[in-house]
Amino acid sequence: MTELSNTTQPHCVVIGIGPGTGAACARKFSNEGYRVSIISRSDERLTAFAKDIPNTMPYRADLADSENYRAVLERIVHEQGVPQVVIHNATQATFGTYTEIPLEKFNRNFTVNTTALLVTAQVFGPMMAAQGQGSIVVTGNTAALRGKPSYVGWAPTKAAQRILAEALARELGPQGIHVAYVIIDAAIDMPFARRRRQDWADEDFAKPDDLASEIYRVAQQPKSAWSFLVELRPFKENW
Amino acid sequence: MTELSNTTQPHCVVIGIGPGTGAACARKFSNEGYRVSIISRSDERLTAFAKDIPNTMPYRADLADSENYRAVLERIVHEQGVPQVVIHNATQATFGTYTEIPLEKFNRNFTVNTTALLVTAQVFGPMMAAQGQGSIVVTGNTAALRGKPSYVGWAPTKAAQRILAEALARELGPQGIHVAYVIIDAAIDMPFARRRRQDWADEDFAKPDDLASEIYRVAQQPKSAWSFLVELRPFKENW
Amino acid sequence: MTELSNTTQPHCVVIGIGPGTGAACARKFSNEGYRVSIISRSDERLTAFAKDIPNTMPYRADLADSENYRAVLERIVHEQGVPQVVIHNATQATFGTYTEIPLEKFNRNFTVNTTALLVTAQVFGPMMAAQGQGSIVVTGNTAALRGKPSYVGWAPTKAAQRILAEALARELGPQGIHVAYVIIDAAIDMPFARRRRQDWADEDFAKPDDLASEIYRVAQQPKSAWSFLVELRPFKENW
Amino acid sequence: MTELSNTTQPHCVVIGIGPGTGAACARKFSNEGYRVSIISRSDERLTAFAKDIPNTMPYRADLADSENYRAVLERIVHEQGVPQVVIHNATQATFGTYTEIPLEKFNRNFTVNTTALLVTAQVFGPMMAAQGQGSIVVTGNTAALRGKPSYVGWAPTKAAQRILAEALARELGPQGIHVAYVIIDAAIDMPFARRRRQDWADEDFAKPDDLASEIYRVAQQPKSAWSFLVELRPFKENW
Repeated sequence: MTELSNTTQPHCVVIGIGPGTGAACARKFSNEGYRVSIISRSDERLTAFAKDIPNTMPYRADLADSENYRAVLERIVHEQGVPQVVIHNATQATFGTYTEIPLEKFNRNFTVNTTALLVTAQVFGPMMAAQGQGSIVVTGNTAALRGKPSYVGWAPTKAAQRILAEALARELGPQGIHVAYVIIDAAIDMPFARRRRQDWADEDFAKPDDLASEIYRVAQQPKSAWSFLVELRPFKENW
Repeated sequence: MTELSNTTQPHCVVIGIGPGTGAACARKFSNEGYRVSIISRSDERLTAFAKDIPNTMPYRADLADSENYRAVLERIVHEQGVPQVVIHNATQATFGTYTEIPLEKFNRNFTVNTTALLVTAQVFGPMMAAQGQGSIVVTGNTAALRGKPSYVGWAPTKAAQRILAEALARELGPQGIHVAYVIIDAAIDMPFARRRRQDWADEDFAKPDDLASEIYRVAQQPKSAWSFLVELRPFKENW
Repeated sequence: MTELSNTTQPHCVVIGIGPGTGAACARKFSNEGYRVSIISRSDERLTAFAKDIPNTMPYRADLADSENYRAVLERIVHEQGVPQVVIHNATQATFGTYTEIPLEKFNRNFTVNTTALLVTAQVFGPMMAAQGQGSIVVTGNTAALRGKPSYVGWAPTKAAQRILAEALARELGPQGIHVAYVIIDAAIDMPFARRRRQDWADEDFAKPDDLASEIYRVAQQPKSAWSFLVELRPFKENW
Repeated sequence: MTELSNTTQPHCVVIGIGPGTGAACARKFSNEGYRVSIISRSDERLTAFAKDIPNTMPYRADLADSENYRAVLERIVHEQGVPQVVIHNATQATFGTYTEIPLEKFNRNFTVNTTALLVTAQVFGPMMAAQGQGSIVVTGNTAALRGKPSYVGWAPTKAAQRILAEALARELGPQGIHVAYVIIDAAIDMPFARRRRQDWADEDFAKPDDLASEIYRVAQQPKSAWSFLVELRPFKENW
């Protein structure tokens, strides 16, 4: 099903590209010499980022539709080759307390946050394992570690994602594939976060470029010193 | 929507009744003077347990069908009154490594293990809170804490269930409703477990009656000393 | 070295008896038919509690002096017999940030909080194991789980105590001795706590009698369903 | 008390230098342009490493003697200036089950593993904070996370060290000082480890140079994306 690309540039897939961590990762891997397949469900975003970041190839996919998503991943492999690095960054959240969460949104959040990661692994895992190397880095946040009332519609699905990543890490690790889960314990410096926290200082926010550098670095860890759970927070963060 | 029952016996709902923990809980609460509504998707099980355990009322429900399940819970309230104690014990698992798990089973496991608990909370939580007291005890196992390869189809959904329970505990606790999550770190003494572990000694298994006694006790903890996460394991368990 | 007592009453040792959890435990075990050896470094406290609580035998010991402490435990065994239950409740704290903690107090806190538990285990563990049953319940708090700046002089020693208890649980469990660690995540209802939190409601405090009931219950868990880590908090506690 | 060094090379202090992680860290920081003060209680080791690794300055200290250790750290500051990076790598262990651990060794392990880190922080913390930047990286292993029977003399002191580091991270972080705790979940590739595991493959061991690269990288993390707890394990490690 796969064709090797005729280029020697390594290939990175960034799943879920928005103005924060996703775009910064695409830019970082591009700067480091990777061709970068970027995935979003928004054509507008894809067009803008593909124009803005060199060596990116846009792919539209809806992670809430697992079969559509699987087909897009397979098309990426067909057109761009097996990736050396996958950044799984897409997430979907619903906020509110337990009486307010519609079941269909709860289930959709699981499909986007957890089932999609299983699809990512099912498509790329065996191919990467056949090559004996590669990295899958999943981004999460503290919701993956604990449940608080207003996060009831989101935290369970991120916890599920984290535990899925852990099972994948244990399965794929001995096959040479590094799976890591990065907990970003911070408000990420993005326009909407700035609007909601107008009294915050600049240094209170995690910078997407810094996060992307750390994610890049995790993806490059030597095989004798891998991290699975990685926590990243700004120096002033209260934790 | 609710009618108070004309009895003074307290009411317990046991969700998911099989030959292990569920039946032992029903029997324990029955012995302690509770009327017990028991839920299973198997008419055969319901008939057998309703005959065997005094003061049990059988209700058939399929937790994979959230709307059916919600309707059954509402019927229980209508017919039996608001419960004082809810034991959420149903679980659905699929075993195999990540390439073997069909997405529909992965999603169904989430619906049964996690979404159903949200339904349980949405139906009973506000009613119990209105009465200012009550307990919801959810049963899990170590899969709720970690991901291992062959548990990839199950552990994520149990982790999601645990984190959902934690969010519920933080929301409902201050309203007087005790939510607890019991991690049974053991092989439970049931016929199929015995068949798979024929070289084990009797004392290597967790006894359903002992588990039920502990679950009963958790449900009775005084309001100034509640546990959320409760771990139970036999004295010889390796952990 | 040990003499069996000529009584059939079971024997409990409460290490660290003050006006909160320790006294409540002594009272609870006394009420349940135990003879209770109580240990404090304060003669005044010992005299008062021995007078107030039936079936208690006072023993003065300074846990900061490990050899003195060991000798007192051996005397208790000689005079009262091997205990069925040990409640290890003594603790010593120093508050302040890292520049303020004198090393001698830091080391003394370790001796009292951690080394003394090792002494407790070294004296009672083999004797209890020879009888094939018994419980050692250690009390802690959230400082055993995390380090915060003003707890820098205390939290490391409680974390050490918890991990020591865990190692003991894994060693002694298969020998029939139940070791548990109870995290009291609360302000305990005692005069000094009330004075410091005059705006708190009565129900915001954990009641020593409720804590003692839970500790008693942990000590009585059946061998097929033991807890190691037990968390107790009032229903309104923010966690 | 401190004199700024007249060099523009940054200064790193490596506490605890042996043939594994410590020497590899000294070599890595030396290669990256640091002057490196190295601390050991062995004159032989100090002489050998100071000869072998460029830009290293040997300091003899016994971490079991806190006042001696404090004086040596103060002398380092006097002679070499305030460090930008501190690698706290010294550890002392005693193996055996709970009845076999002499109290004096248990207490000494605490002094070396935990109290010495408090001394390190007390000496360097305020000076580094005055400069508004710096990193303190502490090395540990899975004993810092859990207690197992044969680690009863060591794990409690490493858990204490980890929780001390956490309290320091929360205190010093907002002052611009990055404190991290690196859990090396591996057998490190050293002669004695090779001798004990002669049937292991080369890739089963964590390579000191890889660990040192990761530790170097943690010490260089940007201020908006710091890790506290860092886990490192070889790709084939069973966890």
